[in-house]
Amino acid sequence: MPLVDIQLIEGVFTEAQKKGMIEKVTDAMVEIEGEAMRGVTWVRVQEFRSGAWGIGGKGLTTEDVRALTS
Amino acid sequence: MPLVDIQLIEGVFTEAQKKGMIEKVTDAMVEIEGEAMRGVTWVRVQEFRSGAWGIGGKGLTTEDVRALTS
Amino acid sequence: MPLVDIQLIEGVFTEAQKKGMIEKVTDAMVEIEGEAMRGVTWVRVQEFRSGAWGIGGKGLTTEDVRALTS
Amino acid sequence: MPLVDIQLIEGVFTEAQKKGMIEKVTDAMVEIEGEAMRGVTWVRVQEFRSGAWGIGGKGLTTEDVRALTS
Amino acid sequence: MPLVDIQLIEGVFTEAQKKGMIEKVTDAMVEIEGEAMRGVTWVRVQEFRSGAWGIGGKGLTTEDVRALTS
Amino acid sequence: MPLVDIQLIEGVFTEAQKKGMIEKVTDAMVEIEGEAMRGVTWVRVQEFRSGAWGIGGKGLTTEDVRALTS
Repeated sequence: MPLVDIQLIEGVFTEAQKKGMIEKVTDAMVEIEGEAMRGVTWVRVQEFRSGAWGIGGKGLTTEDVRALTS
Repeated sequence: MPLVDIQLIEGVFTEAQKKGMIEKVTDAMVEIEGEAMRGVTWVRVQEFRSGAWGIGGKGLTTEDVRALTS
Repeated sequence: MPLVDIQLIEGVFTEAQKKGMIEKVTDAMVEIEGEAMRGVTWVRVQEFRSGAWGIGGKGLTTEDVRALTS
Repeated sequence: MPLVDIQLIEGVFTEAQKKGMIEKVTDAMVEIEGEAMRGVTWVRVQEFRSGAWGIGGKGLTTEDVRALTS
Repeated sequence: MPLVDIQLIEGVFTEAQKKGMIEKVTDAMVEIEGEAMRGVTWVRVQEFRSGAWGIGGKGLTTEDVRALTS
Repeated sequence: MPLVDIQLIEGVFTEAQKKGMIEKVTDAMVEIEGEAMRGVTWVRVQEFRSGAWGIGGKGLTTEDVRALTS
C-alpha cells in the first residue's frame, strides 16, 4: 500500500516515458506519504488498444492522442 | 465522469461490434445523465485472454462464448 | 461475461437513475451480443467520494457535476 | 458474485499454473461462501507487461520475479 | 506481485469470513507460486452496495445473495 | 486519457494529503505527457476499509500503516 494504476492508450508513449511515469509518480506519492513507504508503493502501467478508449462515444486512436501531445 | 469499463473475452466480438458497444453504451448513459455530459463520458473496452476468465473454476474459451452467442 | 463497470461520483445520481443505468447499459450490450447473453451480462455501479475524482489536478465535487448536468 | 481478479506479471507462470490458480482460488472462495455459489463465482487472470509493475519506483521484470520464485 | 482483488456485495459475508477469504486465497496462490512469494502476495476485499451489482439488468440485493448462500 | 487510480487504506491520509496526491501525481504525469494533456488527465483516489487489504494473508489496519508512515 499504496497502489497506483496508470492507464494509457498503447503506442502513445515510449518505454522510457512509461518508465519515467513509474519513477515520477512514485516520487510524487513518497513526497506525501513519506520515504518509509517507498518500498511498499506499487505503481503499474496498463495500456488499452487504439480505438478501445471512447470519449463522447468515439474511440480515441493512438494518432488522435499523438496529435494532442505534439 | 462518468467512466464505463466494458470487459470481454478476446476474439468473441468484431471490431465493429466493440465500436458499437462504445457508441450504444455512451448513448444509454447520456439518456440518463443528459446530453451535456456526453463529452465527458468515457467508455473503454478491455479484453481478457481466452481461458483467463473462469466461471465455477473453469476458464471460458472464445469458442465457449461464441457457441453461446450464436 | 461480459462485465461492465459504471463509475460515478457519489450524490450526483438518484437510486432510480443508477437502477436505470444498469438496465439501459445491459440492454445496449444485449443489442450487440444477443439476447442469449442477457443472463450472464453483469453491470455494476461504483461511486467515488466527492472530491476524489480529479480532472486536470482538481478534484470534482458532487456540486460541480450537478451544475454540469442541470 | 463474487468476482476475483488475479493480476500477475506476464511470462512468470505457465498456462497450467494460471489454470490452477483459477481452480484453487475458486475452491478457496467456495469453502467460505458455500458450494451453492460455485456457479456464480468468477475468477479472472490479467497480466501486466514485464517492467510495467513498479515497486519502489523500479519496474519488475519477468526475470526478477522468476528469480524470486525459483 | 501478485495482487488479487476479491469483489463482493456488502452485508453478505461477516468480517471473519472476509478475513478467511484473504487467508485462504493467499494460501491458494502460494500453493502455486511458492512460499517465497507469500510476503509480496497482496489480496484485497472490495464491496459493492446492495443493488449496485446487476445480473441480466437487475441489481442483486444483499438479501438475494443471502438466500443463495443459505 | 490518461487515467490514474490511486488506491489507499482509509483513515491513513488526511483530506489535504489526498488532495495533494491528486495535484502532485497530475503534475508528475504532465511532466512527461506535456502540458496540453493536463485537462484530460484524470486522477482518482479510492480507499479500502481497514483490514481489507491483505499482505502475506494478513489484513493491514489503518493503525498498521500509520505506524509505518510515522
